[in-house]
Amino acid sequence: MSTSRVKIWILALALALEAADGAARRDVLGKPLVVASEGSFFVGGEVKTSSTLNATPSPAGTAPLPGDITINQMYVQFQKPVDGDRHVPVVMVHGCCLSSKTWETTPDGRMGWNEYFLRRGRSVYLADQSSRARSGFDATTINAVKTGVLPPSQLPSVLMASHQTSWTLFRFGPEFNQAFPDEQFPVEAADELYKQMIPDLNGTLPTPNPTWKNMAALAVRLRGAVLMGHSESGFYPEQAALRDPTGVKGIISIEMGCATDLKGQQLATLAKIPILIVFGDHLGDVPGRFQTTWTTNFDSCQKFVDEVNKAGGDSEMMWLPKMGIKGNSHMLMQDKNNLELADLIIAWIDRHVEANKAAPLSTRASK
Amino acid sequence: MSTSRVKIWILALALALEAADGAARRDVLGKPLVVASEGSFFVGGEVKTSSTLNATPSPAGTAPLPGDITINQMYVQFQKPVDGDRHVPVVMVHGCCLSSKTWETTPDGRMGWNEYFLRRGRSVYLADQSSRARSGFDATTINAVKTGVLPPSQLPSVLMASHQTSWTLFRFGPEFNQAFPDEQFPVEAADELYKQMIPDLNGTLPTPNPTWKNMAALAVRLRGAVLMGHSESGFYPEQAALRDPTGVKGIISIEMGCATDLKGQQLATLAKIPILIVFGDHLGDVPGRFQTTWTTNFDSCQKFVDEVNKAGGDSEMMWLPKMGIKGNSHMLMQDKNNLELADLIIAWIDRHVEANKAAPLSTRASK
Repeated sequence: MSTSRVKIWILALALALEAADGAARRDVLGKPLVVASEGSFFVGGEVKTSSTLNATPSPAGTAPLPGDITINQMYVQFQKPVDGDRHVPVVMVHGCCLSSKTWETTPDGRMGWNEYFLRRGRSVYLADQSSRARSGFDATTINAVKTGVLPPSQLPSVLMASHQTSWTLFRFGPEFNQAFPDEQFPVEAADELYKQMIPDLNGTLPTPNPTWKNMAALAVRLRGAVLMGHSESGFYPEQAALRDPTGVKGIISIEMGCATDLKGQQLATLAKIPILIVFGDHLGDVPGRFQTTWTTNFDSCQKFVDEVNKAGGDSEMMWLPKMGIKGNSHMLMQDKNNLELADLIIAWIDRHVEANKAAPLSTRASK
Repeated sequence: MSTSRVKIWILALALALEAADGAARRDVLGKPLVVASEGSFFVGGEVKTSSTLNATPSPAGTAPLPGDITINQMYVQFQKPVDGDRHVPVVMVHGCCLSSKTWETTPDGRMGWNEYFLRRGRSVYLADQSSRARSGFDATTINAVKTGVLPPSQLPSVLMASHQTSWTLFRFGPEFNQAFPDEQFPVEAADELYKQMIPDLNGTLPTPNPTWKNMAALAVRLRGAVLMGHSESGFYPEQAALRDPTGVKGIISIEMGCATDLKGQQLATLAKIPILIVFGDHLGDVPGRFQTTWTTNFDSCQKFVDEVNKAGGDSEMMWLPKMGIKGNSHMLMQDKNNLELADLIIAWIDRHVEANKAAPLSTRASK
């Protein structure tokens, strides 16, 4: 065949695959959702005794009552599809200044990844990071400062991301309220994203971050899971696996910095787990203080991928623009092509984590 | 018929109804859940400009960047059943030191009210109070104190409920870790309840509490809803209706204090809305500082019910022990008989809010 005929055949094949994908997606989306079971629970948590559980002055002559509270627990909300055991469950963990809302209905009202993965037959577990949202946090220090027991310097550093910071850091465009021409984030609904952005209280947590061990424990409890993290939590799946790899059958790390100082034993542990790293577009295209943030993060992750693979691992860098998918932001699970990206990730899970489908969940991916 | 024969007939009828109820419940529980649609969104929210969005020292020579954040929004998570329009949606709002987890899987792993109401054909909306959980809160004051811009006295009072306080205040038993003989709360799983208990940041909110207007706005957005509150939020449905009754088609207030100083116009507004107040058992049975808490709350609500009805309203006090249902705690939506209680509440909605089923949602209950 001539080169041009080959090109035409390839184009036709690509269009057919795209059409099949689209048809499959429409089929998945068009029906009522059938849920085998749903609910919520906690992983982890330790008991702490404190006498600064509130800052209200006590009645005259009485000291505040000390008491026990539970801290460091992680709230998990789940839905399982009918025949959910055919696939490895997927655990999704949000990033800085956000909650599990990240994965739900997008700011412009489209289906989020949580429901789409479920409709694609996966059990989905959304975890609010320990110290965030429904997981609660340890507020005793705040009351201790208010009542004069501790100095103000002991207050936790609470991080909030402004609209202005989010716009450029999340790569919606070069300047606040100015979008890249090919921007995939639904910028007209940015105000709805800003409502998702909540104070980050990780500064109240002990070291190491209890979310890491909680994610590892969740994977064990599920008898095997794919752990997915984003941004602040992007490398949490690796951190979880480094603490206890037993349940971690696959790792999906989206848009973050990667550790490049891992030791031989650590690399050997991660080399046993399929790892997918995902980055969007415009990494170096925002001027100002975030100019090098994403290129530096990308480079660290490319180095990480190379090191894991050198140690015999199955690690892959999915850089979307390199695949011809342009304009994706940092919040790519909310971008206009979010379901297309979900299809890519699910296909990766099928190929790398579930290739040996005959094996029971507990032994899969330990190949 | 003789009195004894009448008694036997009544007993037989009661048993038959109970059996039918049980059968209906088993039928509702035994099948996969079919969801017409689900998702999440925010109600309300205002933009605030602040220069204390974080407390990290700035690089030398640069001042912290001021920026905009969104505060006072309310996160809402929903599921709609197939043919959900046949019933008025139900909005559930949690109490102090808790999140929407209140209504989900119980501490001992049974089905929560959110799923049960859905299985009984109701669209269910779970709202995290403004300033709690996934709704986020305004943390700028904490950073302003940490950086010396404000004195410690300006810190919000953050309320945490200890295990010990919860046990007696929630009426699990007379003393910590000692249960009432007929206690309905699954006390063996109390540790799982303690994981749900998170810092209450209502002290960061402006006055009046924005959750009230957000609940009213949600009811309007749903073109009519039953608003349900519990404990701290027990009287929030009434507060919402007093701000804008347009969407409030019914009110369910569980275990709280009621306002007894309402004026004529306020009573007239509430008299147009069917109101159900629910209290459990052992109201005066915990010794110590909570000895009179619940009896005082109950009395205020009985007075409120009487005043609303005197103004021509349809208000009802459902005091469970008076109906022969014993041992219910403050956390009655998590008690062992929680689905039986849900049936009672759904039956009340059917009778009082949906009696005129032919009318469109927007006009129902304005009878």
